[in-house]
Amino acid sequence: MEESLVAAMRSAVVLAEGARGLTSPNPPVGCVVLDAAGRRVGAGATQPPGGPHAEVVALADAGERARGGTAVVTLEPCAHYGRTPPCTDALIAAGVARVVYAVSDPNPVASGGARTLRGAGVVVEGGLLEDEVSKGPLRAWLHAVRHGRPHVTWKYAATFDGRVAAADGTSRWISSAVSRAEVHELRRRVDAIVVGTGTVLTDNPALTARANDGTPEPRQPLRVVVGHADLPDTAKVLDDSAGTLLARTHDPAEVLAALHARGIVDVLLEGGPTLAGAFTAAGLVDRVLLYLAPALLGAGPGALGASGVSTITEAHRLTVEEVTMSGPDVRVSAVPVRD
Amino acid sequence: MEESLVAAMRSAVVLAEGARGLTSPNPPVGCVVLDAAGRRVGAGATQPPGGPHAEVVALADAGERARGGTAVVTLEPCAHYGRTPPCTDALIAAGVARVVYAVSDPNPVASGGARTLRGAGVVVEGGLLEDEVSKGPLRAWLHAVRHGRPHVTWKYAATFDGRVAAADGTSRWISSAVSRAEVHELRRRVDAIVVGTGTVLTDNPALTARANDGTPEPRQPLRVVVGHADLPDTAKVLDDSAGTLLARTHDPAEVLAALHARGIVDVLLEGGPTLAGAFTAAGLVDRVLLYLAPALLGAGPGALGASGVSTITEAHRLTVEEVTMSGPDVRVSAVPVRD
Repeated sequence: MEESLVAAMRSAVVLAEGARGLTSPNPPVGCVVLDAAGRRVGAGATQPPGGPHAEVVALADAGERARGGTAVVTLEPCAHYGRTPPCTDALIAAGVARVVYAVSDPNPVASGGARTLRGAGVVVEGGLLEDEVSKGPLRAWLHAVRHGRPHVTWKYAATFDGRVAAADGTSRWISSAVSRAEVHELRRRVDAIVVGTGTVLTDNPALTARANDGTPEPRQPLRVVVGHADLPDTAKVLDDSAGTLLARTHDPAEVLAALHARGIVDVLLEGGPTLAGAFTAAGLVDRVLLYLAPALLGAGPGALGASGVSTITEAHRLTVEEVTMSGPDVRVSAVPVRD
Repeated sequence: MEESLVAAMRSAVVLAEGARGLTSPNPPVGCVVLDAAGRRVGAGATQPPGGPHAEVVALADAGERARGGTAVVTLEPCAHYGRTPPCTDALIAAGVARVVYAVSDPNPVASGGARTLRGAGVVVEGGLLEDEVSKGPLRAWLHAVRHGRPHVTWKYAATFDGRVAAADGTSRWISSAVSRAEVHELRRRVDAIVVGTGTVLTDNPALTARANDGTPEPRQPLRVVVGHADLPDTAKVLDDSAGTLLARTHDPAEVLAALHARGIVDVLLEGGPTLAGAFTAAGLVDRVLLYLAPALLGAGPGALGASGVSTITEAHRLTVEEVTMSGPDVRVSAVPVRD
């Protein structure tokens, strides 16, 4: 694969990342168009539902210069009529000679894009940076298509001894300013944030995505509060700074089914130990994101409540994906070992 | 500083590391001798107490070739009579023209080596790779000289939710085979391993350093059991595979004073939550070494018991020094923030 194609795909990945949180239930896709000489002449990302897909945005950007050129796109172009016409039609109409994509479309309705394009005489190559895209911008969407439910990231901050608060319940701040800023960036890119009524009653969080200066981001994820307890009118999650869903159940599967029905693909679980334990016990945590704060407490609530484990052989085993520093904290991303 | 000197000092650091655990109460030191043309002609490390220091070993290795050459050594050579004559005498007698060392001797009795050498016309330069040596092979010894007590590393393995065992007490194996092998390597390099009677009564560990095939290492650290509870005759720590000290107290400071009096410099604390809490509360943990095992339990004992913290502002704050992978586990080394 030519070097220029790899560089173009990396740009497409960045474009796709930028669209995360804006496109659900559609996938966040990025596209770069090169002209016949390999020069970059257009770029684009998926627009919010009802708006054009990445390929159409990038082709519009390139105009006539796309003719005889190459479209580099993070997902196999769709060949079906949804709310917008098939991207394959747009690529063929623009006279693109070649399409290079990262990930094949697993969606039985949308797939067949590569075949349609080849039928029209376009050269098609798949698999470029496939791993990077499928673990990156398309991770949650691919999961939702394959499993029929949203992808759940459980995010928590705990001390070296696994506690989320001191003995008297105080927890401000266990994690660093850098980690807290990262969490707002995470929130901005998901479709929904899930907590339990306990967290709302104890901490009264706003659960909004805010910039470093405290300004709310223009687009906010749905706030989801799980449980039967009534919330006071003063609860910040009931204000009008973002949408809120009250899920009056204790069953994580019911919560996820309700979110899936709303087209939600990517969920950030920020609940306390009880809710995290329920999701873990149900096998409904798809990624664990731990901000390990360099502090010791020796008392106080643990990060995870009852999760159906009574003896060590029943432990929920994980595989570490990535370890990075987040200011003074150690940030560890891990995924469940599915037997 | 010439490149060859840096390379020689790195070799001296490796030699010093190899002597760790064998030299207390003396420092583990490494020395490389270069001839007048800069060729490596001798090398050595501190021998067990009563035996020669690193410089003397390296000079004997070099013989006449040391004349007009350079001695590269991790610690400022001593100028006093202890169990062996001063190293400065040996360096001067060997006709060494230059001495390059990493760390100045903080010991008021032994220091003055650089001055003595300069008085004899030897060129002396200090500070080469000082940080590497003082955080590496000389860390525990420097700590013991400065604070008048052994350096304590608290080592523990915990799950992502901070637990050291499941609800039924089972814990075999929370950490990986790679991490367990690393712990035996750690044990081999310290002077003493400290646990509480609780750990002995519950787990009955041998607390010996063993090679991967289970063979005991030729030299074993002292086993120290803290607490008043009587141990059964069947306790493995009472066998003759290594020395054992029963410290009938609950005061960590008393334990360390007893070990300091025995010339012990480097201590590995492997106790359970109660003992670790007591050492932490007393401010007597100098390094925290966490093997974070990728698993979730949701119930079971936490890694750290009561450590005198009741509210978040009293948390024992740490600074992360190093994060590495140890097989599937995340290994984090951290040191206390001393206000």
